[in-house]
Amino acid sequence: MEADTAKLREQACSVCAETWEDRVKVQTPHCKFGEDGICCKNCSMGPCRITPKAQRGICGADAHAIAGRNYLRTIAAGTSAHSDHAREILHVLHRSSADGNYRIRDEAKLIALAKEYGVTTEGRDIYDIAHEVAEVGLQEFGKSFGTQNFIKRATPERQKVWHDQDIEPRAIDREIATALHMTHMGNTADAEVLIRQGLRTSIANGWGGSMLGTEVTDILFGTPTVRNTEGNLGVLEKDMVNVVVHGHDPAFSEMVVTAAEVKELVDYAKSKGAKGINLVGLCCTANEIAMRHGVRMAGNFLQQENVILTGAVEMMCVDVQCIFPALSALSECFHTKFVTSSPIARIPGSLYIEFKPETAFDQAKDLIKMAIDNFQNRDPNKVFIPATKQTATVGYPCEQIIKHLDGVTNSHVDELGSYRPAIDAIKAGVLRGAVAIVGCNNPRVRPDYSHFEIMKELLQNDVLIVATGCAAQVATKAGLLDREAKYLCGAGLRRVCELVNIPPILHMGACVDISRMMLLATGIAKDWGVDTTQIPVVGCAPEWMSEKAVSIANYVVSTGLDVYLGIEPQVKGSTQMMELITQGTRKITGAGYIINKDPHELVKTILDGIEAKRAALGI
Amino acid sequence: MEADTAKLREQACSVCAETWEDRVKVQTPHCKFGEDGICCKNCSMGPCRITPKAQRGICGADAHAIAGRNYLRTIAAGTSAHSDHAREILHVLHRSSADGNYRIRDEAKLIALAKEYGVTTEGRDIYDIAHEVAEVGLQEFGKSFGTQNFIKRATPERQKVWHDQDIEPRAIDREIATALHMTHMGNTADAEVLIRQGLRTSIANGWGGSMLGTEVTDILFGTPTVRNTEGNLGVLEKDMVNVVVHGHDPAFSEMVVTAAEVKELVDYAKSKGAKGINLVGLCCTANEIAMRHGVRMAGNFLQQENVILTGAVEMMCVDVQCIFPALSALSECFHTKFVTSSPIARIPGSLYIEFKPETAFDQAKDLIKMAIDNFQNRDPNKVFIPATKQTATVGYPCEQIIKHLDGVTNSHVDELGSYRPAIDAIKAGVLRGAVAIVGCNNPRVRPDYSHFEIMKELLQNDVLIVATGCAAQVATKAGLLDREAKYLCGAGLRRVCELVNIPPILHMGACVDISRMMLLATGIAKDWGVDTTQIPVVGCAPEWMSEKAVSIANYVVSTGLDVYLGIEPQVKGSTQMMELITQGTRKITGAGYIINKDPHELVKTILDGIEAKRAALGI
Repeated sequence: MEADTAKLREQACSVCAETWEDRVKVQTPHCKFGEDGICCKNCSMGPCRITPKAQRGICGADAHAIAGRNYLRTIAAGTSAHSDHAREILHVLHRSSADGNYRIRDEAKLIALAKEYGVTTEGRDIYDIAHEVAEVGLQEFGKSFGTQNFIKRATPERQKVWHDQDIEPRAIDREIATALHMTHMGNTADAEVLIRQGLRTSIANGWGGSMLGTEVTDILFGTPTVRNTEGNLGVLEKDMVNVVVHGHDPAFSEMVVTAAEVKELVDYAKSKGAKGINLVGLCCTANEIAMRHGVRMAGNFLQQENVILTGAVEMMCVDVQCIFPALSALSECFHTKFVTSSPIARIPGSLYIEFKPETAFDQAKDLIKMAIDNFQNRDPNKVFIPATKQTATVGYPCEQIIKHLDGVTNSHVDELGSYRPAIDAIKAGVLRGAVAIVGCNNPRVRPDYSHFEIMKELLQNDVLIVATGCAAQVATKAGLLDREAKYLCGAGLRRVCELVNIPPILHMGACVDISRMMLLATGIAKDWGVDTTQIPVVGCAPEWMSEKAVSIANYVVSTGLDVYLGIEPQVKGSTQMMELITQGTRKITGAGYIINKDPHELVKTILDGIEAKRAALGI
Repeated sequence: MEADTAKLREQACSVCAETWEDRVKVQTPHCKFGEDGICCKNCSMGPCRITPKAQRGICGADAHAIAGRNYLRTIAAGTSAHSDHAREILHVLHRSSADGNYRIRDEAKLIALAKEYGVTTEGRDIYDIAHEVAEVGLQEFGKSFGTQNFIKRATPERQKVWHDQDIEPRAIDREIATALHMTHMGNTADAEVLIRQGLRTSIANGWGGSMLGTEVTDILFGTPTVRNTEGNLGVLEKDMVNVVVHGHDPAFSEMVVTAAEVKELVDYAKSKGAKGINLVGLCCTANEIAMRHGVRMAGNFLQQENVILTGAVEMMCVDVQCIFPALSALSECFHTKFVTSSPIARIPGSLYIEFKPETAFDQAKDLIKMAIDNFQNRDPNKVFIPATKQTATVGYPCEQIIKHLDGVTNSHVDELGSYRPAIDAIKAGVLRGAVAIVGCNNPRVRPDYSHFEIMKELLQNDVLIVATGCAAQVATKAGLLDREAKYLCGAGLRRVCELVNIPPILHMGACVDISRMMLLATGIAKDWGVDTTQIPVVGCAPEWMSEKAVSIANYVVSTGLDVYLGIEPQVKGSTQMMELITQGTRKITGAGYIINKDPHELVKTILDGIEAKRAALGI
């Protein structure tokens, strides 16, 4: 893979284009105050920075208050990103109709959610139900009283922890606003209190916004099922019109996927000398459409510029989050049309076409046509498509995992629809446990390397992996989502893979789908009869980069699962904050961070952690 | 005044205490990247900083994107602070009862708001109405559809501007969450789009949260009326138990004020050798209780440490916002008890007593008793109370201004309840216009100096001033809230002051009450038959410091009023952002910033601005 990247870097040189590798060179070394979290920009008396000689900001805030405030704001921003995305999807559900662009694909899931919400379902039109469910869902963001509905999905023990610790999240947006208020000049300076609000705000994400986002996306576009696909830059096709969708919000990409399959447009592409239309995904959008349509995945976060550097992309359409603003200048070095579509993510130099639910499909068809028209502008001399690609089996939301487990359940003796077979395998020691590997890439470490090393070693040690987001795409590129990857596993895990007919890494979706992992851990804990914090299941984000990741890490910790990080949260300048995120949260939620920049050392701590959980359970 | 401060600095030295003056010394020079707004900490690939050699962050964000994102986050945080405060007050209203701690003091205002909201009033118990109004008010923070109710209070022209420019704010917390989402890694990089969301988010503050906060505070504690009081450190009493309330949320301070008047407690204070209980206010809390009870004001933002340095304060009780965390260490150098009361503003080293509506009055009495018990611990050798204080007349919300104008209206010819007399004075040139002077102190400039110089010069030029927040307290300390200050005014303004029987600077309240100023400007514009942007009325924040101030400045600009700033917003590293805040917003709202660090030059631009508005109106 890295040889391809080197070749693409040459490609960049030849068109005088700049990539993240160049920018990292001029941006390093990074500001130490920022890295350590002890620079405060929260009022215009400053910025203030903590040094041995200046132990307090002008207002008197010390390193702990400053690092704590910065950290809470990071969580608030990450929560906003996931939740605002979910809000958009809910508004789409609210405008869904039998003859519109957006229809209900998973009626059963809608009905189940309606029942959970207390929305009447009998004798009603499915769209009436959908609209009322959307209204209840939207109220989760702004209701004036009460706490998040979905927290009742957690184990009873977990619900009690959240209640007793006073971190049950109220309305999602309220937690965000309160977090900003607490970190405003002249408010909270107590690091532990800031951490507690961080946990609360993060639960509003994981058990609020993100979970709603996932749920409603399934309702609108179908709950993912197991599918075969391919991943890496080799999925771009030399002789076809290449359209890349990038971002996070499936309301946009689903329409583009459908438009790319329209026969008239395929014929139109052929009339323009192409062999057809090749639509591929990038980043979390790739995960979403791979899980629902088998659309191939071009790459993850730090590959976004590489995709354009192939010179073979007629159009890159983006929606929200993790979009490099650099893509506009880079696209101009090629014939690539760079299209932004969301009012949330406007980028200068892009072609902005605001996507609207009412006209979505027509807009998507227009985009595909524009991409086709652009095919003739491709400069063959500038094209380099690496051959690398890997086959992958994706699409393992909880429902599919249960379905596969049902396949090995002796239905004469045991109950179907349970995680029991997995629990039995863990109890027997055939599986030692499971790790959710999630998160981004980060130039602070060699891209994909930590992910890959950790995955490989866990598999060898009979640890099942569930993956989402950019981490899932590393697994794709490394061939670990292929059922044949069982040969890289320890004997126990290999047997499980064979028996259940799964790859050793289960692709669960986009980063917003880490909520699926919370439900998976909860399902296992409930079927086990223990709390989530007791089971040998942990989270790991080896190369995380975004504020969303910090919010996610906090809701995973809130759910009682330890989180193993390969990149340090930016609070190192405060001993109190370092203690709080690694130890302090254990007193609140029973879990915390373990941080190690060396992937091999990190994986060792994960294995130790899993064995410690096992020992505590007496297995 | 500054001599007193020097003496208090000696006092600090003698007890080895550190104050903001010391901290400014070690915190300057400030980080230039932060000051210029071109340091990005929004993901852990960074921090990234823009330099001539590094024109883009790792993701490709340039100076404009970074400064724009930082600026929008500042607005979001400021909006959160005001709005979250308003939410708390609404929850208090929701729990108000005839026999509880919190009752309805301004029934007429409640009924008017109920009618505005479409809440049935006839034949209903006032508390039933109050609770329903609170519920509607709370929904302004989180409603899933529609825009802010109070925007209908603006001039028709203004409403059209907001509609046409697509900056009508939806739910308050939604605008905050969306602002954070837009500024999250990989989203909006277009400075103008960020500025537009800033305006929208700020309107959610000024015409949403802040306006609700003011309205409901009036309902619960009474709409302020004209009262005489005193201000500056000399209001502390050598022989009395001194209790200082500091912060912003009147739900807390109102109870403490009432408790300090309880006869048993006054007697108890006397039994402990004190002549009584001397309750005084600090910062915006001072403004709130001065306007409603005539409670005396000890000082503004940068005086908070000086108050404790007098050695004569038995207790300082704080609620939210602008509280120096430094106060806990400083209090420990004296006998002063430093009490925090809000879960939003927890400060290590303080005595935390969470204030609850159900038990508020009992808690307030306990606090007063604790302060009394602390009187004996005062060390007379450490006491220095400056003699300086000034008389002031405060309490000029719109209702009082109208009432005073009614006093000079010829009711046989003209309509009562109108701003007509003021408009006539402006048209005649007796008054040239009006300036709203608001905002904090900031060590970047000599404290209070800019405020005072600008005020003095405007008065000489026949410009009426309305003031809130820390600015209003500068006017207090300078004696400009005294009716006798008319002698400092030009002939025209002096005549108006005499005729209407007002001081030349009208104290309109706390910083949350800048919403009153928006209604004042709107009322004048409506009675004039023009839009707010046409009248010779502007805003000025000579020494602003907080994120709230940036949010305020934006809603004032959104309302069509130019804002004159004495401190630069931290976006200087982006030419685009500088252009947008000074010129770009003019194309959107008809107003913008004028920035000048020299108060004498700034006042000249204000006068020019007012004259230009007059000329455009043909007066």
